[in-house]
Amino acid sequence: MQESASFSAESYFATQPAPPSLAEDIASVQEFVARQAAQNRNVVLVTSGGTTVPLELNVVRFLDNFSAGTRGATSAEYFLKAGYAVIFMHRQFSLQPFSRHYSHSTNPFLDFLAVEGGGGAAADTVGVTADKRADADLLSVLTAYKRVQVAGTLHTLTFVTVNDYLWLLRAVSQELSVLRRRAMYYLAAAVSDFFLPRQKMSEHKIQSGKGSLHIEMDQVPKVLKPMVEEWTRDGYIVSFKLETDEHLLIPKARAALERYGHQVVIGNELHTRKMQVVFVERKRKPLPPLPPGAEDAEPEASTDINEPIPSAAADAPAAESTRTDDATEVVVDGNRTTNEDGEATLGPPPPPKPQAPPATHDDESMTFVESWLRIASQPPAGTTMAQVKEIEEDIIAELVRRHTAWIEHA
Amino acid sequence: MQESASFSAESYFATQPAPPSLAEDIASVQEFVARQAAQNRNVVLVTSGGTTVPLELNVVRFLDNFSAGTRGATSAEYFLKAGYAVIFMHRQFSLQPFSRHYSHSTNPFLDFLAVEGGGGAAADTVGVTADKRADADLLSVLTAYKRVQVAGTLHTLTFVTVNDYLWLLRAVSQELSVLRRRAMYYLAAAVSDFFLPRQKMSEHKIQSGKGSLHIEMDQVPKVLKPMVEEWTRDGYIVSFKLETDEHLLIPKARAALERYGHQVVIGNELHTRKMQVVFVERKRKPLPPLPPGAEDAEPEASTDINEPIPSAAADAPAAESTRTDDATEVVVDGNRTTNEDGEATLGPPPPPKPQAPPATHDDESMTFVESWLRIASQPPAGTTMAQVKEIEEDIIAELVRRHTAWIEHA
Repeated sequence: MQESASFSAESYFATQPAPPSLAEDIASVQEFVARQAAQNRNVVLVTSGGTTVPLELNVVRFLDNFSAGTRGATSAEYFLKAGYAVIFMHRQFSLQPFSRHYSHSTNPFLDFLAVEGGGGAAADTVGVTADKRADADLLSVLTAYKRVQVAGTLHTLTFVTVNDYLWLLRAVSQELSVLRRRAMYYLAAAVSDFFLPRQKMSEHKIQSGKGSLHIEMDQVPKVLKPMVEEWTRDGYIVSFKLETDEHLLIPKARAALERYGHQVVIGNELHTRKMQVVFVERKRKPLPPLPPGAEDAEPEASTDINEPIPSAAADAPAAESTRTDDATEVVVDGNRTTNEDGEATLGPPPPPKPQAPPATHDDESMTFVESWLRIASQPPAGTTMAQVKEIEEDIIAELVRRHTAWIEHA
Repeated sequence: MQESASFSAESYFATQPAPPSLAEDIASVQEFVARQAAQNRNVVLVTSGGTTVPLELNVVRFLDNFSAGTRGATSAEYFLKAGYAVIFMHRQFSLQPFSRHYSHSTNPFLDFLAVEGGGGAAADTVGVTADKRADADLLSVLTAYKRVQVAGTLHTLTFVTVNDYLWLLRAVSQELSVLRRRAMYYLAAAVSDFFLPRQKMSEHKIQSGKGSLHIEMDQVPKVLKPMVEEWTRDGYIVSFKLETDEHLLIPKARAALERYGHQVVIGNELHTRKMQVVFVERKRKPLPPLPPGAEDAEPEASTDINEPIPSAAADAPAAESTRTDDATEVVVDGNRTTNEDGEATLGPPPPPKPQAPPATHDDESMTFVESWLRIASQPPAGTTMAQVKEIEEDIIAELVRRHTAWIEHA
């Protein structure tokens, strides 16, 4: 292994070892996909949580990516409610659909239970505490959970390291590809950009006696390209782009679409990700005929499936755009109308953030459509779970709509 | 800030910012300690889980230390059962006493619940599934949990970063020091050896476009020394030493005792840590009178509070030791006698691993006592929780014994 080796997806899989559980995981996915195909269900692969990069073979230290798995676990729940079968591929111990509502820290389940004296000679038993027996949130979560168990529409896989993740992603994508356009790939995991090849790893715990620590890592190969071109066939692929510098969001989302050729990038900024996201899509448009002597062709602003909502569109980034190929639409949604206690939080969405100037494109025929999706700020604490609007509900509704169109327009 | 700055505890706290919740956490600890002191209880600080080192101010990536928090959460439970009040200072989302038995992955609590039809016009309610109502494990955990809640003997604090941890550790140690010898410090957290000073941190997510990633970190100051000498007064301090290279375990444990002057190091090796640990203590002995012309004084082998168990001692590292100041004792314990199904797993403990030659000591009057503590291998899967022996039960029993002696010999 050269010190300066740069990994392609091909050289990565040729040199890095497969996780021991891979064959077993693949067999379970094959069985799951076959069953869903027989029942004519769409299947979505949801990846969730952060991947780690171990620094030692006997792992004591590792590099990690910030993610509790909220986006993925919440999204999986809404996909299940929408009738999809879900392969939930998540970081071990990250949040999972349904149980995510009962974190041991904030909502410990032992507080839901009570020891009930049997009375007389009868032994003690465990029961649900009186105040939780008719709890609407618990009933709702439990009912949805049991329904999914009966339907058999949720299949869970776990990963820890970025190596586990890459091997699993390739294998599951290949298995899902038999569904062609009915397969969706929703890549919400926070995947490491850098890793330490097995061949460079220290066997034992790095000792601290020698002063400061130097780590040098290689880039993780960009697997979206082989995923689009080789592992899947006509699947609907959604990737996420998380940034902390909001000015990088749109340019980087566009660059990803240009480079990998998949369907949608959902962009989100670390601190506002629960309130707003942006869907970025490519639109290929025929070049308008060039008038004689013209240097620059400006394609018309493209339109998306949605009609922009006029009142909100007035605030939209499109108004500030300096190029007409920077078409931007806004999808607005307030809190659900059944939220009778949340009126104070309803109202117009927050104004969109200033947007970076669009990236320049060599290919002027490439246009992008950006659709912002926002929810109103959260209702005050003490509101019941059912009253709290989650942005994932709207993200999944929008994706299901687009995926349906994608299947029908095949 | 100099590039090459090396941090003492003093310069660390002078330059790195305190976590925002510190004042509130200190106030809660003050109240807790005062209440326990009034009730004449011993108090132990248990630290648990791994600390992180963020690489960016807006955290996307961080270095982490491998730890689910099993050792700390399990130990806290046994301290509570032994009548101690416990300040459980743990990594956010790491395992906690009692709830640790119900991981969302391996023992999801929603499987304990059922929706029960109200019948007729009555609404649905939530109940415990029939097979769990009389579950002995659940009853036992729940009873212990409720008892601790009523007694008010568990106080929980959380940290994420190594910076949170260091600030909290200093503050809690200072608060606990009013209890003098009745305070114990059980430092089971997996604390980063390296960190990135605030002044060197990148504000935004490190971009991956520029090839490989280089990280250079500074050493975290060794805080055990100021903890012994300044933050606490006569407290009983137990630190842990985790290694993957077993040959480093004893030498490093001894070096820590020499350097910091605390009471006990519990050494454990990553892969055997649930089956065996070694207690390492210092014994100061007067030098025997030197015979005329003698170059080397060999102090007598020291004895510990325990009598070594002869049958096991025959296998013990002491037999292979080349120096008599390398006194080693073995404390052996099989599965509990009530484990009627586990007979196949009982038997002599595994032979101890070969041991590294003892470190050389400038001060020949310094001797060490090593006491191995082992449990038999685990019973087969399907055994109930109550039948599974946990090594923490014996670790805590031994520490309570030593701490009691420490208090009485004041």
